[in-house]
Amino acid sequence: MPNTILQESSKLTPGILSLIPTLYVGWADSILSPSEIEFVQSKIKELDFLTEDDKAYLLKYTDPRNPPSDEVFKTWKLAIQRHSTTLNAEDIASLESLGLEIAKKGIGYQNEALWKAPQTKQAIRDIRKSLGIQNRDGARILPGHLVKVNPHTDINIVLAKEMQEHLDGDYKEIGDKIKKLLRDPFFAYKTLRNKDEYRDHVLEQLKTLARQGLTSYSFPTEYGGQNKPGDHIAIFENLAYHDLSLTVKYGVQLGLFGGAIQGLGTESHHRKYLKPMMDMDLLGCFAMTETNHGSNVKGLETVAVYDHASESYIINTPHEKAGKEYIGNAMHCTMAAVFAQLIVDGKSHGVHAFLVEVRDKDHNLLPGVRIEDNGYKMGLNGVDNGRLWFQNVSIPKENLLNKYGDVDDNGQYTSPIENPNKRFFTMLGALVTGRVSVGLAGNSAAKTALSIATKYGSQRRQFASKDGIEETIILDYPTHQDRLFPLLAKTYALHFALQKLNTDLAADSDHKDRRKIETKAAGLKAIATWHATHTIQECREACGGKGYLAENRFTDLKADSDIFTTFEGDNTVLLQLVAKGLLTEFKKSFHDEGVKAVMKYIGAQVSQKFSEYNFTATRNTNIEHLRDRDFHLEAFRYREKKLLYTVSQRMQGYIKKRIDSNQAFLKCQIHFLELAKAYVDRLVLRNYVAAIDKMPEGDAKDSFNLMCDLYAVDTLLNNKGWFLENDYMEGSKTKALRRLKQKLYQEVRPRANTLVEAFGIPEELLGAKIVLYN
Amino acid sequence: MPNTILQESSKLTPGILSLIPTLYVGWADSILSPSEIEFVQSKIKELDFLTEDDKAYLLKYTDPRNPPSDEVFKTWKLAIQRHSTTLNAEDIASLESLGLEIAKKGIGYQNEALWKAPQTKQAIRDIRKSLGIQNRDGARILPGHLVKVNPHTDINIVLAKEMQEHLDGDYKEIGDKIKKLLRDPFFAYKTLRNKDEYRDHVLEQLKTLARQGLTSYSFPTEYGGQNKPGDHIAIFENLAYHDLSLTVKYGVQLGLFGGAIQGLGTESHHRKYLKPMMDMDLLGCFAMTETNHGSNVKGLETVAVYDHASESYIINTPHEKAGKEYIGNAMHCTMAAVFAQLIVDGKSHGVHAFLVEVRDKDHNLLPGVRIEDNGYKMGLNGVDNGRLWFQNVSIPKENLLNKYGDVDDNGQYTSPIENPNKRFFTMLGALVTGRVSVGLAGNSAAKTALSIATKYGSQRRQFASKDGIEETIILDYPTHQDRLFPLLAKTYALHFALQKLNTDLAADSDHKDRRKIETKAAGLKAIATWHATHTIQECREACGGKGYLAENRFTDLKADSDIFTTFEGDNTVLLQLVAKGLLTEFKKSFHDEGVKAVMKYIGAQVSQKFSEYNFTATRNTNIEHLRDRDFHLEAFRYREKKLLYTVSQRMQGYIKKRIDSNQAFLKCQIHFLELAKAYVDRLVLRNYVAAIDKMPEGDAKDSFNLMCDLYAVDTLLNNKGWFLENDYMEGSKTKALRRLKQKLYQEVRPRANTLVEAFGIPEELLGAKIVLYN
Repeated sequence: MPNTILQESSKLTPGILSLIPTLYVGWADSILSPSEIEFVQSKIKELDFLTEDDKAYLLKYTDPRNPPSDEVFKTWKLAIQRHSTTLNAEDIASLESLGLEIAKKGIGYQNEALWKAPQTKQAIRDIRKSLGIQNRDGARILPGHLVKVNPHTDINIVLAKEMQEHLDGDYKEIGDKIKKLLRDPFFAYKTLRNKDEYRDHVLEQLKTLARQGLTSYSFPTEYGGQNKPGDHIAIFENLAYHDLSLTVKYGVQLGLFGGAIQGLGTESHHRKYLKPMMDMDLLGCFAMTETNHGSNVKGLETVAVYDHASESYIINTPHEKAGKEYIGNAMHCTMAAVFAQLIVDGKSHGVHAFLVEVRDKDHNLLPGVRIEDNGYKMGLNGVDNGRLWFQNVSIPKENLLNKYGDVDDNGQYTSPIENPNKRFFTMLGALVTGRVSVGLAGNSAAKTALSIATKYGSQRRQFASKDGIEETIILDYPTHQDRLFPLLAKTYALHFALQKLNTDLAADSDHKDRRKIETKAAGLKAIATWHATHTIQECREACGGKGYLAENRFTDLKADSDIFTTFEGDNTVLLQLVAKGLLTEFKKSFHDEGVKAVMKYIGAQVSQKFSEYNFTATRNTNIEHLRDRDFHLEAFRYREKKLLYTVSQRMQGYIKKRIDSNQAFLKCQIHFLELAKAYVDRLVLRNYVAAIDKMPEGDAKDSFNLMCDLYAVDTLLNNKGWFLENDYMEGSKTKALRRLKQKLYQEVRPRANTLVEAFGIPEELLGAKIVLYN
Repeated sequence: MPNTILQESSKLTPGILSLIPTLYVGWADSILSPSEIEFVQSKIKELDFLTEDDKAYLLKYTDPRNPPSDEVFKTWKLAIQRHSTTLNAEDIASLESLGLEIAKKGIGYQNEALWKAPQTKQAIRDIRKSLGIQNRDGARILPGHLVKVNPHTDINIVLAKEMQEHLDGDYKEIGDKIKKLLRDPFFAYKTLRNKDEYRDHVLEQLKTLARQGLTSYSFPTEYGGQNKPGDHIAIFENLAYHDLSLTVKYGVQLGLFGGAIQGLGTESHHRKYLKPMMDMDLLGCFAMTETNHGSNVKGLETVAVYDHASESYIINTPHEKAGKEYIGNAMHCTMAAVFAQLIVDGKSHGVHAFLVEVRDKDHNLLPGVRIEDNGYKMGLNGVDNGRLWFQNVSIPKENLLNKYGDVDDNGQYTSPIENPNKRFFTMLGALVTGRVSVGLAGNSAAKTALSIATKYGSQRRQFASKDGIEETIILDYPTHQDRLFPLLAKTYALHFALQKLNTDLAADSDHKDRRKIETKAAGLKAIATWHATHTIQECREACGGKGYLAENRFTDLKADSDIFTTFEGDNTVLLQLVAKGLLTEFKKSFHDEGVKAVMKYIGAQVSQKFSEYNFTATRNTNIEHLRDRDFHLEAFRYREKKLLYTVSQRMQGYIKKRIDSNQAFLKCQIHFLELAKAYVDRLVLRNYVAAIDKMPEGDAKDSFNLMCDLYAVDTLLNNKGWFLENDYMEGSKTKALRRLKQKLYQEVRPRANTLVEAFGIPEELLGAKIVLYN
């Protein structure tokens, strides 16, 4: 034991020991606000079981400006551990009984009557409560020990913490940082029904994030950034546990506007704009979408005509419905990244992005610019969406974000990418960050909803099985489990796939794997956001009338996240992109090896693999087989590959009949969507399995595996019609899977609260009155 | 031709004729508001192609206080028909060209140049537009003729009107009346974000409904009512095309509070309270639900203790969470119908309802009553929900609603229903009206959403199949059809089942079929409201970003209707009721004929019927068979009966093993839910088929049949896993059904707009900017 700790240890009298557990947890959570402190200090001064020295010591460590040093902290922890080894579960069930028990072991313990008096315990409890600490937090300071666990309502904190470490992975530090900040009363939820007040509030919060250095993660260090794009997305993911208006505002300013400058601009733009943009001195919007063109960005109609005489671009909105629409930051910004068709010498070179000043320093609109408020929306009313139109707005030549296309000194268009189509998709590649972010944010919203519904479901009772006995906890009803647990399992599964995607994207600075990442991002964004919408709805309903009250969070959660299925790419359109991507990959192999050969090979692979499997497995209802990960992976693979093969066959058939390829695509459109879903399902399972494989054996791994079983079985059952139709399974097997699913619910039930606790969402952020403790 | 018409006909000069089509449609729609009239009159005075006599005639019929008589109306109609028989589609494509064409046939037509001048046509167009008339409305006045129909965007008005007649059925008159009223500018949608303003506004609207005599339909004529309970529910259904806050407020005051007085009270209560309640002089709430007891009404904890000495009841809320919760009208009311456990001489007689005054004339709370606002909710913020607590509130003996239980002059409890359980369920029977109403209102909300999404989808274009050609209408994408059309089909199907239920309920004044109706109401309420939530979500997404703007209605539609799945009985709980009801029926036959015999009989029926069918049908992919209504009915029946049989078998098995019946029920709970869903699916199909069978042959019937095909095929496919699992169909057949479904989309597509027009929801009530015409 180092000297300082020994020295510090000697100071711990019985009086100090009695309050150490409470203080320790208080500081560990860093939740000491000024008003709490004041109350605690006045309380300490009153305590008759403390000496004046005790009081002085304790008061010192309730001063927020004087946090205990690491040594002091360790001393406290060791003292608690040392003195508590012989205690039983009851003694450590609350921080106050723990404190009183270890006080007994302190030097000079006497006057037992005073220590045993009920008001002594009550005094410590009051201090704990005024610090906002729940008793279950006590377990954190006793590794190896647990507070007595009631499997129906309590949480295995140690397991939850361990699982959270796995979930947070590389993003633990940034996640803890942002969550700690968001727990500050400054960020406490407010009911702001008036959009203008709400928008001002969100802007203020965004500026606070900037002051805390949280807006610079995705930008290069040479311009004041931190060059950690993965952390940037993780901030977005964690902000999404809080107000989604703030999250989206953050994404608009930094991901979209800042992202356009960084991704489409060149050094001079970076030098001039990145720093003020990060500092919120330059607020900008991303003016891409138009009323008549959302999904079809290529078809947008705003034009930027180059005028060589004045070396400038003239921006025009050709008609009302070619105005920019739903543009976030429209009412607050002074600059817009405007996407327009670049015309040089009467020739169009396709969509490019231009920086256009839209307001002066007094926030007046500049000549030729018209901006209108989009008004109230279903949700996200803290974000100032608006419409923009331009009439003969002239901007200097250097305001073209010219990384992928420029006009040279002779007034000639030049581009490093010759193929205009390829150029367009390269420029749009910047959207991938947004899609990964929104996918993760959707999953955060789902986690919040599941945390509230699970916690409420394990407290709420309704209907007694017999008169005179206590009513049943609603989470014990199989139908309630059937409502929540498969969604919980899928949320876990999506988490790992989305997180891996974030890490892969951050690592792909040379854009080598960009196309693959884009396909994955499109697919995961679609599936994760639909999952979020569905999950939040189910959780709202699972909380009954309570879920309908604004005070229980679902109101905002549902309304704010609803647009996720549409923005950053409409989900249906994205899944078509995914399917087309898969087909292109498939076709590539045609070109290398010839159509017939490849079709034959794949066909053989699908049917051979299948017939090998067929004899043994279609009717195998053995429970080990049904929980076997290889069986899951193979079934998911088979579904994807067969859908790919059959849709290719159909397309081939139509094209042979000389049906126009677009018509052929339309005929197969629903089939394509099925393929894309099968692809994402398999991607998610593979990533989940890979993540679990890396974990050490133990409770945490077992819990992840249990959720993975449930995800796999649930997905198979959701597609059982397809598997039966294709003779991949017989009815006896799908029925066995259904029985297994209900068995899995029974395994999930005792850890349900632990499983949502593992998401690590602080109560302040859950923001639901029905699940506030004490 | 009657004389008056002949006489009137002679007045129709060319000038008058030119404006007759426009005026006719204007009056037919009764949408002439004062400001419109003023504009039209000043316009008419200016027209140089009218004589002074023409002007006088026309001005006379633009005075809202002077509507044209039936004769005048008929004259106009005949004149238009007579003069337009030789016209071609182009001539009648607009009301102005139609007017100018028939003017030519008028006596004394001359000065052709003036009539052909563009400004003449423009002047008539201006008048049409200022009356808010769309050209497509012109078709209404030309039965047998149609405006030129573009199958992609236009509407076959004649067919839509004919279909609407079938949909409205017996409730056409009341529906037209209420819709006409709601189109009045007084009811125009407002964005009221502040709940208190919104609540005042809704209360004002409710009072207007009362003044219009629309609040008395469900009450007996002897107390000022109209004794048309079916019409009362139809009003609720039609109000649900408008603001759902108003709808719910109406339901709370009349259905719940008024319904309790009428259904649970006796003559003295009716005499004293019904009239002021209908007139909104007595605002009341229905205080049943408590924080700790919602679904389990039987377990509610508020008590009413009878005190014989004072002949009064003392009402008490035993603890905070036994307070009444989510109570609509809580902030506006002066009286509450309070549900409490009745205690007489220390003995509980179960839940009874008591009338408790809660506020005095100055709207101050009375002693012992505490009421708190429930605050903001997800939606329905125009309804004043609150919480109520009672402390020693004394009410006179006569305030017990004593139809099913009373205390006699000796202080003894008496009841016409001896069995307390039966008594409880009889009292709760009053809730059935609410369930039928909410089911219908949910379907109204779904119709609104589908009308908006279909109309928008057939205007909106995105992505061209090739460069340089017009972009594709999004409703032409199979995935978009897949999104909307099955939901449209189910909405049609649910409509007939719900409407039939309303009519059956109204006819059941002697409560003879009450239990059956309750089962149906529980099941249909659950399925219809889930369908509404799902449909609105899908429609919102189908409108992309536009669907997220408050101006396009989904914001309110989604938020307001969301609670439908929870209130008037939580859907999951209701489906369990349904399943239990079915099992009870099933068990009844046990008692009559012995367990074994019945089980054997049903088992044989299920398997025999099945094996007969088996050889010929499991793999029959003939399209006529797949569209054969008998095949659909038989498959739906089989699913319901087999689920009933198997769940009974399972229950029997558990009970044989001496498993407690409640435990056994829990083990089968998910199975029970499946059974309830299968029952409702079949109920809906049967009612739909019965309604169609009564229709005369023709386009309307064909269209209903097409939607019925789609409903049946879609439902079969949604359960294809089950049918395959149970060897009722082979994969070849389910695949054929899938192909058929896409074929049906192609048949639905050209009439999609007509199919939503047939719902007859006025544009003012749709309230979506994206689908306002012109």
